[in-house]
Amino acid sequence: MAVYTDVTDEDLDAFLSEYDTAEVVSFKGIAEGVENSNFLVQTDDGTNYILTLYEKRVNPDDLPYFLGLMQHLADRGVTCPLPIRTRSGDALRTLCGRPAALFSFLKGLSPRRIHKAHCYGVGEALAKLHLASSDYAPQRANALGVHDWRSVYEQSKTRADEVMRGLGAEIEATLTAMEAEWPQNLPSGVIHADLFPDNVFFRGDDVSGVIDFYFACNDMFAYDLAILMNAWCFEIGTEFNVTKAKHLLSGYTAVRPLSDAEINALPLLAQGAAMRFLLTRLYDWLNTPEGALVRPKDPLEYLRIMRFHRGISGPGAYGLD
Amino acid sequence: MAVYTDVTDEDLDAFLSEYDTAEVVSFKGIAEGVENSNFLVQTDDGTNYILTLYEKRVNPDDLPYFLGLMQHLADRGVTCPLPIRTRSGDALRTLCGRPAALFSFLKGLSPRRIHKAHCYGVGEALAKLHLASSDYAPQRANALGVHDWRSVYEQSKTRADEVMRGLGAEIEATLTAMEAEWPQNLPSGVIHADLFPDNVFFRGDDVSGVIDFYFACNDMFAYDLAILMNAWCFEIGTEFNVTKAKHLLSGYTAVRPLSDAEINALPLLAQGAAMRFLLTRLYDWLNTPEGALVRPKDPLEYLRIMRFHRGISGPGAYGLD
Repeated sequence: MAVYTDVTDEDLDAFLSEYDTAEVVSFKGIAEGVENSNFLVQTDDGTNYILTLYEKRVNPDDLPYFLGLMQHLADRGVTCPLPIRTRSGDALRTLCGRPAALFSFLKGLSPRRIHKAHCYGVGEALAKLHLASSDYAPQRANALGVHDWRSVYEQSKTRADEVMRGLGAEIEATLTAMEAEWPQNLPSGVIHADLFPDNVFFRGDDVSGVIDFYFACNDMFAYDLAILMNAWCFEIGTEFNVTKAKHLLSGYTAVRPLSDAEINALPLLAQGAAMRFLLTRLYDWLNTPEGALVRPKDPLEYLRIMRFHRGISGPGAYGLD
Repeated sequence: MAVYTDVTDEDLDAFLSEYDTAEVVSFKGIAEGVENSNFLVQTDDGTNYILTLYEKRVNPDDLPYFLGLMQHLADRGVTCPLPIRTRSGDALRTLCGRPAALFSFLKGLSPRRIHKAHCYGVGEALAKLHLASSDYAPQRANALGVHDWRSVYEQSKTRADEVMRGLGAEIEATLTAMEAEWPQNLPSGVIHADLFPDNVFFRGDDVSGVIDFYFACNDMFAYDLAILMNAWCFEIGTEFNVTKAKHLLSGYTAVRPLSDAEINALPLLAQGAAMRFLLTRLYDWLNTPEGALVRPKDPLEYLRIMRFHRGISGPGAYGLD
């Protein structure tokens, strides 16, 4: 939730004059997206748009990959923000000195409390996204993949035990094991890599849209599924809900069946997916100033998730038949 | 700009079920209002609403005054958020343990860069608000009026000179003079008391709405006009723009002429209006934690405005004929 950049009327008018949009009647900063400034633009003909300004945490060189992906997915029926083009065909532009883009607006609400029906729907949606992006040619390496975790950890290493005694040792041991055992050669393609409930809109039990593709990259599909399971199937207090997992996996496999190798790799991939968020949350936890309005998320929530996956006897614990 | 309270789908559904609104298709926290949580609600029939949750800085006992005033003004053609009533007639309700209300949505954009045409329009709008509220019976004392400033100052007194050497002495001397000379018996009624550009929407040069009535109270109309002049007629760097003031006062007096007593009191009222914001900004400046996302506003901007009004020879400096 953040709006970092103030856009003046003149800036907005000049920016929008290049599009075939009607007269603007409302312009409001919205609390959506942690990394960027997002504004809801309403025009006189009743159309809504989202205007995004990319703040410094997004690498501008990656933006053509992200915007191209959204266009590609929208063309194939995956409901995601469609980059709107100017009359001269540009989707990626500049506003207030920042890269900026205008998008179609998606109806729907992000679920605050997750039900099993949401889990089925989001599982289906992720599988559709994986299939629809299979012919998306551009490539982007995962900047937060298994081989990056150690360097992320190095930035917090000396202070990890401030958060919990023994945390550093546990992370190091797990990293070493993961680097040795991490699966290779599983089916790969474009993954969303951040499909948390904030990034999925529903109308009733049906997914009406997926947003926030700014971690998308090329990696293993089953790793994306593991991120999804961690984000949707643990209750507050970090209890695993096997019914939700069963629904999530059923939704996914109804669209894209998993191979035996993928299923067998899931517990390790889920530990890795937990490690990835544990490490970035740990960094944020140690580096957010006292008194900041945005409280960093608890890294230990993801430690408990990682331990859960380490403790199970196999993928049967996820409710797979 | 703030969204403090997280509202779950279930909370929202239960809350809205009491109104004759269509199905919700979008619900977004918006960066509007510093004191409260505000959400934009869109329904299936294309109607927009604003849902406000009152956070702890608003006294719940004052809410009937504020909501009643908005209803009163809207009934008299002043475009402001209209409190929507439930089927059983309630406007003020509870959501997530907080007082909450649903309002009509106003089209328009708050100007980020002020032109003289905006100043004429907002002057007119304030005068209309003063006239339209003349038969609003409830009363609310100004909690930040001339007799409250010293106690606000006492909270910052020991640290005022951290901001600027000599600031404390200058405030104390000015307070003493103001308390002695403050005008009495000028025309009074309901004032907005916080009509900054963020709180006014325009479509083109025309005011399309006024929001944020949570400082409204009963006090002198000309004091409200002085707050308005301070908020709209000083450039960045705190240079007074007499053309803007002339337009603002022309707009106001075209609707509600000023008496000679009001005109003569304007320089002192404008110093007082500057003092009020100097003191609350000084308090916020000294009490905002390091690293907080919302930077406090510069109190010295209002010191310079106060000095400007002290230095002029009379109300002619405002461009009055």
